[in-house]
Amino acid sequence: MTKPDALHELSTLLGQRLSTSKFELEAHGRSESYFPTTLADAVAFPDSTEEVSEIVKICGRHGLPVIGWGAGTSLEGHALAKQGGVIVDFRNMNQIYDLHAEDMSVTVQPGITREALNEELRATGLFFPVDPGANATIGGMASTRASGTTTVRYGTMRDNVMALEVVMPDGRIVRTGSHAKKSAAGFDLTALMIGAEGTLGLITELTLKLQGQPEAVGAAVCAFDNISDAVATVIETIQFGLPMARIEFIDAATAAAVNAYSGSELPLTPHLLVEFHGSEAALAEQAEVFGGILAEHGGKGFDWATAPEDRKALWHARHHAYWAILNSRPGCRAVVTDLCVPISRLAGAVEATRTDIDQSGLQGPILGHVGDGNFHAILMIDPERPEELDRAKELSDRMVKRALFMGGTVTGEHGVGYGKLEYMPMEHGEGWDVMAQIKAALDPMNIMNPGKVVRFGE
Amino acid sequence: MTKPDALHELSTLLGQRLSTSKFELEAHGRSESYFPTTLADAVAFPDSTEEVSEIVKICGRHGLPVIGWGAGTSLEGHALAKQGGVIVDFRNMNQIYDLHAEDMSVTVQPGITREALNEELRATGLFFPVDPGANATIGGMASTRASGTTTVRYGTMRDNVMALEVVMPDGRIVRTGSHAKKSAAGFDLTALMIGAEGTLGLITELTLKLQGQPEAVGAAVCAFDNISDAVATVIETIQFGLPMARIEFIDAATAAAVNAYSGSELPLTPHLLVEFHGSEAALAEQAEVFGGILAEHGGKGFDWATAPEDRKALWHARHHAYWAILNSRPGCRAVVTDLCVPISRLAGAVEATRTDIDQSGLQGPILGHVGDGNFHAILMIDPERPEELDRAKELSDRMVKRALFMGGTVTGEHGVGYGKLEYMPMEHGEGWDVMAQIKAALDPMNIMNPGKVVRFGE
Repeated sequence: MTKPDALHELSTLLGQRLSTSKFELEAHGRSESYFPTTLADAVAFPDSTEEVSEIVKICGRHGLPVIGWGAGTSLEGHALAKQGGVIVDFRNMNQIYDLHAEDMSVTVQPGITREALNEELRATGLFFPVDPGANATIGGMASTRASGTTTVRYGTMRDNVMALEVVMPDGRIVRTGSHAKKSAAGFDLTALMIGAEGTLGLITELTLKLQGQPEAVGAAVCAFDNISDAVATVIETIQFGLPMARIEFIDAATAAAVNAYSGSELPLTPHLLVEFHGSEAALAEQAEVFGGILAEHGGKGFDWATAPEDRKALWHARHHAYWAILNSRPGCRAVVTDLCVPISRLAGAVEATRTDIDQSGLQGPILGHVGDGNFHAILMIDPERPEELDRAKELSDRMVKRALFMGGTVTGEHGVGYGKLEYMPMEHGEGWDVMAQIKAALDPMNIMNPGKVVRFGE
Repeated sequence: MTKPDALHELSTLLGQRLSTSKFELEAHGRSESYFPTTLADAVAFPDSTEEVSEIVKICGRHGLPVIGWGAGTSLEGHALAKQGGVIVDFRNMNQIYDLHAEDMSVTVQPGITREALNEELRATGLFFPVDPGANATIGGMASTRASGTTTVRYGTMRDNVMALEVVMPDGRIVRTGSHAKKSAAGFDLTALMIGAEGTLGLITELTLKLQGQPEAVGAAVCAFDNISDAVATVIETIQFGLPMARIEFIDAATAAAVNAYSGSELPLTPHLLVEFHGSEAALAEQAEVFGGILAEHGGKGFDWATAPEDRKALWHARHHAYWAILNSRPGCRAVVTDLCVPISRLAGAVEATRTDIDQSGLQGPILGHVGDGNFHAILMIDPERPEELDRAKELSDRMVKRALFMGGTVTGEHGVGYGKLEYMPMEHGEGWDVMAQIKAALDPMNIMNPGKVVRFGE
């Protein structure tokens, strides 16, 4: 029972679809944030649930770690093979199985990306709303409980997955949930697997809730003199109950980076980017209410972008803000914070974060899904200067603790991976031990993405 | 280590707040549906989380079962002490701790009822939307993953609880979730506890999402010539994406029972009862769309009840439909089915159910939260005639299997208890084994509500 034996068995199972090439190992060892490249022992490209089950069984027999891989867009090192093992890349499992338009649901394999899915859905009048920005896979989004720009209206992955097929740590293939809209039949295994980051099993199929494409969509950018006015506008909008489809904040530094990268001409001040979904009449009503709130807080330039190409440009700029920011300092990497606080604490949290960054000497634009109380600081560091990474981590530590103090969470949507592992006992107390008990019960060999999310056997 | 020792220790802890009187044991041994009265060994009335923790520790030391008790309104025998033990009645833990109006959240103890909570909230302009009909406690509603008439708009308990405090089977006091709107920080213990029916721990505190009271509310009753027209109206309404606040179905037999009980004068045909929430303009728009769908399917009498007292009468009649039906055959008990199917299968499911009942010789009005694909048949039985119970169970069995065949669930909202236990392997397959693994890991002594939801050590 050795690693070479395991790889031999995997190779017999998968043939060319098991790779140990330097190229593949490196491609599956990189992170989009500051983590160093980490090489697995092999990368597997299964074609079916049955193959995933066989892979897990082989790895279980040999005690080799198994780590799922979607599009590699995660930011907390979730898919890095910290203890070696086999990366299971779901790129070949990217089919849409069943589209039930009349039930507004669809069953997909985990390797399909959200953009590919929505492209396929376009003609049906339906769409899958969760939008983390990156063109992540649906399996990866479920595993990290992703959310994003539209969550203020449509919820997170937790709210938009009805049923799963999961390969358990012992290779069993289990189905969770049903195709009904709700159920009270036993423990919510679907919710347990969503956000487990592959530590309890590998998701091999998902049934998703879909939404009807809105009759009308309107979007707008509004500029503010300062952060507090922008955030006050958000808080009032949410408290009023306006059904915003998106309400995003970018600060002046982000606006500058976006201008340089996307060729836009935003004034160098804080902004809100908003979107409304509904009937024409509902849109008009919402815009009027929002315009009123905006005016009270000195918001400027509330111009509608109802033409699809204008909206596309707007959200393209927002979705590429991370890259725009990295691009503003060539060669830099980033520590990305992901705080989420109760909306009543949002203004205080964002302002204190801005002050902290300004005092640190680091560059760190702030942006986020403020309708949920969730925002990110992109702390830029020079990978050649370890002291910058230390300073960024110190800064992040300070922000994380502030969020917890405010009743919030250390990660609104990026997940734990190993980047946030140290904060889990602080956020959950003995609840983290309960998570470890569940992990130990379902994965006693600790082969599923070891070293992430939970503590094992310590 | 005997039962008398345990009761003695509990009595020392609680004094008069531990009862072994026949009156209390019987009051906590009755079910609202067909289950026979089942007596516990004692009933405890703790005043605090710490006392609940002590109760659980004492029972753990002596291997005595612990069963939570809210308002006793469950329908599947959840809170019956099938294996004896101590009923923990949360009536003294019914406080509202923290109302965060600006965050639209509130923290409460489990023993508060939903009506009492909403009464307290009225002046704030906020409300807690989940409405299972019965005036259940919030803790009981969370434990059974309750939903009800407003779920089509506002979701189930799963969607409306942000954070919990739970006393675990070993007495540890654990907090789950946070006060932020979302989090990606580890396993979703909140979702795991919701719907666990007290088999993994006792919920001692809940933080709930609140909704703003809508600017305007309109409700209406519409009559149909037959079931299929009524159901077709529902399906089209949901598929159109109209944000109905309620859309309830009652059949002709239910209408007759309601008339007799509430003094209404509904025509003896199937009906839909609907409610809209929104601004005045949004309501008018929604009503127009709904009126159009209705007209296509021959719906009649779409009269607005915008006056609060008319709406109150309407929903009072709906909420008391169960009692109205039981009252239509004095002395009867009921087997209440709780199927939930994908909306595309709803018409077929309801019609087949109606036919089954008509052929059975039993009386069984049908009603339900059809916007979610969820409906109930109230199969009336004479408790003196065991053959009627057998026939009702046979009928229920047939319906349950049909729902599973259609991709649905055996229980949309009533939960498993022990009434639906036998169907769990059929619905979940190996997923039920996973539930048992979690149960065994967290409650190795099997003291928390044993014999419900999961299998243990078989």
